[in-house]
Parts: sequence; structure tokens; C-alpha cells
Amino acid sequence: MALFPVFLLTCAAAGMAGVFFRPGAWYRGLDKPTWTPPNRLFPVIWAVLYVLIALAAARIAEVPDNDLALGLWGLQITINTLWSGVFFGLHRMLAGALIIAALWVTVLATTVAFWSLDMTAALMMVPYLIWGTYALALNTSVWLRNRGRDDAQRDEAAVTGKR
Amino acid sequence: MALFPVFLLTCAAAGMAGVFFRPGAWYRGLDKPTWTPPNRLFPVIWAVLYVLIALAAARIAEVPDNDLALGLWGLQITINTLWSGVFFGLHRMLAGALIIAALWVTVLATTVAFWSLDMTAALMMVPYLIWGTYALALNTSVWLRNRGRDDAQRDEAAVTGKR
Repeated sequence: MALFPVFLLTCAAAGMAGVFFRPGAWYRGLDKPTWTPPNRLFPVIWAVLYVLIALAAARIAEVPDNDLALGLWGLQITINTLWSGVFFGLHRMLAGALIIAALWVTVLATTVAFWSLDMTAALMMVPYLIWGTYALALNTSVWLRNRGRDDAQRDEAAVTGKR
Repeated sequence: MALFPVFLLTCAAAGMAGVFFRPGAWYRGLDKPTWTPPNRLFPVIWAVLYVLIALAAARIAEVPDNDLALGLWGLQITINTLWSGVFFGLHRMLAGALIIAALWVTVLATTVAFWSLDMTAALMMVPYLIWGTYALALNTSVWLRNRGRDDAQRDEAAVTGKR
């Protein structure tokens, strides 16, 4: 587990994107499905997932022939870092959904690559994959519910509380 | 070089941050040093650097005991992905400089780790390290020259062309 700090730092860098770009008035004003989780849940879930996937990568770093697995892990965390700025910063909901779709495929590929090396590490990726599935559904639903409305209308809705 | 596509895709994901967050009216209106490169140079330089560091990582993926080196490579590209949104998206110049400083340290550590495994791969990281040094100087200079001015003043300068 010698490399756990390196992978945890990498997750921390990805998490910084969510610290810089947060849900604000724009997100509050969006029409969201009833199964949208409360905002305060997101940082808790991400903290747990980041520790789990950093532990998984640190386990994988100790087995032979792990190059593809480590490469895919690096790809998924880079795609992960992109999302917050595009969704919360630029308010680009479709682009956000496409980024999560690419993330989902990469996390699945990483999990499969981990599975052949260390089953425990692969299992540590499963909650991330489940949360990714949910995040993809949520982002897509938010896009479908709000795509007809421009930013000005949404900003107004955020201020007046109207939907 | 079997893993070159994975590392190039990772660089492409990092580069997407620069596609989503571009220099615009705000950046034009900033007081910048005389040694600021023209905007059109940035994508060209980044394309070359990304191909070089993806090649370097693909070489490192083929040598034994590369786990730390690949872990550090993943850390630096994740930090790299953060910068564009913070600087061009949020206009946070000091945070941008701190991100490049963290990136610079990580790229140096990656290059050192590569050096002990494959000297050619380490040399392929050197242009990135040089560009990182320059980018850190430029970001810091821009922060020092503009930190007293708020966004409204800068936006006005962008429109009127005044400094």
C-alpha cells in the first residue's frame, strides 16, 4: 500500500474541481427529478468513493502486469476532474452527461482490468460504478428537463423561486 | 508502446478542459507582461507536449517497477486538468498559480521517477517541465499585475481597450 498517498493525492486533485465549482443559484433553479439527493450528500459520498478507489489502485500497484489497469485508473480520474467545471461552471448539461458517460465506460474498463489482477481491488471500484450510474441518470434527467430553457430564464427562476 | 492510446486519451481528456475554458474578453483585458505568448500558440504547444508525455508514459509502462512513476504521471495529468477552469473559468489567478506550482513539483517528481527507469522517457518530459516553468512565471506575473483590480474593472478594460 506504499502508493496509497499518491493515489489519494490524485483523488484530492480531482475533488478540488468540486470545491472550486459548486452547486449554486443556477443549480437550485433547475427543474430536478424527485430522486435528486440533497447537496450535502455529494461531498460525503465522493470522500468515501475517493478513499476506496485510491486504496484499490494502491493494491493494484503491488501486483505484476498492472500497466493497463493503472493507465485506465489515470484516465478515469482525469475525466472525473473535468465534470464539475463543465456542469456547475459552464452550465453545459449535455456535455456534462457525455463526460459522465465517458467516465462510466472508463470506470467499467478499470474495474474489469482490476478484476483479473485482484478481486478485492475490483470490488472496491463497484460503489464508484454504481454512483456513476446514478450520476449519469441524474445529469441526463436534469438535461432533459431543462434543455428548452436558456440561462437567463433559469437564473430568473433561481431568484424568484419559480419553476 | 501498446498503452500509448490510453495515455493519449488521458491527455485528450486533460486538453478538453482547455477546449471548454478558453481565454476570452476577461483574459484580453488583463495587464500582461511583454513576454506573453500569442493565444494561438497555446493549443499547438499543448498538442506537442501531450503527445510527448503520452509517449513517455507508454515507454515507462513497459519497464518493471514502474508503479510509482505511473502513479505520479496520473497525479500530474489530474492537476493539469484542474487549471483551465480555475483560471479562465473562475478568473482565480492566485489559485491558478498555486495549481501550476503543484503541477510543476509533480512533473519534476514524475521526470525524476522516469529517469531511473528509462532516460529517453525522462527526456520526453523535459519540454513539459520547461513549459510549466514558463506558465508558472506567466500566471504569477498576471496575478501580480492584476490582483488589485476587481472583475468589473477588468471586464470594462476588456470592452474599452483601456489598461
